[in-house]
Amino acid sequence: MVTTAEEPAGETLGELGEGAVLARIVTRLPRSRWQALGPGDDSAVVAAPDGRFVVTTDLMVHGPDFRLAWSSPHDLGWKASASNLSDVAAMGAVPTALVVAIAVPASTPVSVLEGVADGFRDGVDSLAPGCGVVGGDLSVSEVFTIAVTAFGDLEGREPVLRSGARVGDLVAVSGVLGEAARGLRLLFTEAVDGQGAPDAALAAALRPRTARQLAPTPPIADGRLAALAGATSMIDLSDGLAIDAARVARASGVTIDFDSSALGPDVELALGGGEDHSLLATFPPGVELPGGFRAVGAVRSVLDDAAILLDGTPHDASGWDPYRGWDRGRG
Amino acid sequence: MVTTAEEPAGETLGELGEGAVLARIVTRLPRSRWQALGPGDDSAVVAAPDGRFVVTTDLMVHGPDFRLAWSSPHDLGWKASASNLSDVAAMGAVPTALVVAIAVPASTPVSVLEGVADGFRDGVDSLAPGCGVVGGDLSVSEVFTIAVTAFGDLEGREPVLRSGARVGDLVAVSGVLGEAARGLRLLFTEAVDGQGAPDAALAAALRPRTARQLAPTPPIADGRLAALAGATSMIDLSDGLAIDAARVARASGVTIDFDSSALGPDVELALGGGEDHSLLATFPPGVELPGGFRAVGAVRSVLDDAAILLDGTPHDASGWDPYRGWDRGRG
Repeated sequence: MVTTAEEPAGETLGELGEGAVLARIVTRLPRSRWQALGPGDDSAVVAAPDGRFVVTTDLMVHGPDFRLAWSSPHDLGWKASASNLSDVAAMGAVPTALVVAIAVPASTPVSVLEGVADGFRDGVDSLAPGCGVVGGDLSVSEVFTIAVTAFGDLEGREPVLRSGARVGDLVAVSGVLGEAARGLRLLFTEAVDGQGAPDAALAAALRPRTARQLAPTPPIADGRLAALAGATSMIDLSDGLAIDAARVARASGVTIDFDSSALGPDVELALGGGEDHSLLATFPPGVELPGGFRAVGAVRSVLDDAAILLDGTPHDASGWDPYRGWDRGRG
Repeated sequence: MVTTAEEPAGETLGELGEGAVLARIVTRLPRSRWQALGPGDDSAVVAAPDGRFVVTTDLMVHGPDFRLAWSSPHDLGWKASASNLSDVAAMGAVPTALVVAIAVPASTPVSVLEGVADGFRDGVDSLAPGCGVVGGDLSVSEVFTIAVTAFGDLEGREPVLRSGARVGDLVAVSGVLGEAARGLRLLFTEAVDGQGAPDAALAAALRPRTARQLAPTPPIADGRLAALAGATSMIDLSDGLAIDAARVARASGVTIDFDSSALGPDVELALGGGEDHSLLATFPPGVELPGGFRAVGAVRSVLDDAAILLDGTPHDASGWDPYRGWDRGRG
């Protein structure tokens, strides 16, 4: 029996069967403006006006990626959409559609799946209006697993790659830094019972301070704006500013030098915290930064083989490691 | 520790880490002719010459969908590609690309993941030459899970839907009927030890008779040929001929009447057996059937509310039910 922060009850997937459950879920999902054929056939059909499409895929697994005592079903759908939409935005593309494959224990109440669907709807409608869910799959598994594949349209532009940063470019970020990690740290320290097990009631009381972790709001529209403004490189900040900036730096053959005064009061948290799904981009010098982007550093020639500098000094480029971070608990 | 029919050993995912494992896997994957940008950035980019793309997604879960004592890693990659390519083919489309998200226990040897990658390569190269894997994700989970999303191009044609069958049409099938189910039945009866647990050595000895179950070879190219020949409806036979034909019949508002003499020696197995991933299509009368299609019946007006007839008599439209079929064992 899956229990969650919202303690839903009622009929389960095993009792109702796949067909009946899908019928209840599909109507809750957001419809894509690019949908040429939606759920119900062997495949869906999505418009690709650019003549190409951007695609990214990602798994969220109960245990290493989320705890059901901390995340509501709505949170799961929201976060799964947000993290995938951000990978589309990081190419400079406009998100057009998602497909969602979910596997859950047969004992899962249908209301949980409805909550996940509502989270997808609200996440997509809020972060990428016009995008929608065009298809999916529902399976049974002992481990609650959500697989999302997201699509985007480049509107005739070239994709913004990790490899395009040039010496002299501005380094800029749109979105929060370290807030998702701060929320996770809070959950691990204050939303566990005496035995260290995740506790739903304690998590609920912390909600205002954990929302950035459980239901992030990445600046999806700023991906397109960055591309229009001439961004030379871009990446979604999923593993932390330092490790993701190092990926850009290595792919581009440069070093990224952060200005600590631009990284907020907790510089180490801003550099090391994962899962913000903010956007890091580089722009030619003199560009007026678009949308929510703010300058956080500059691109320099490689110095001492370092990918990352902080105020001109080589800095550790480590961050979130899902293998290291998981204690095998599920909650 | 995951053990399989091939008993691979060596370094594990947990020991090597995601990045090092991905580096070893990506080079083994087939490259798509439609790939504009491959793995390594936040998203891939795939050509969609039609201006639309076909998309389908599917999960394969250890336990309900496969046993590691019966399926080799190569089988898993092959079957995951075959089943998804077939959903693209059933729209009349040419498969262009896949993305693959895999979650496995951290104790999984990297050689297992390499075997899965090789299965994707050989399955895609054999069934849909030119198609390839353009991106993916690798995660840890207690349950071995493979999520595939497949894409196709319609080459300017309209998709062939389930809803287009018309009274008087021919009903035709390309590919085997009941062979995957026959193989699965054999595994459940003869590839288990005295305690009923799946046994790798017993399964290996049965291989010639179980290949259709473990590594199916659906007629992917016949999907496009059916569309070119004017197919009015089409579906991938994943759940069994009876249940999938009933889906076409209900979507089209017709009844499908099978000719038992066209269904081979074991008619009930042909009607009820799932996972063949053959194609069922309807064609206007008088059409010369393309590729491997052979006539198996005719489309009639709805009779007695039946979706399916056998030699003119209403027939049960049931088939493979993954919820009913799973005994919670994994093997």
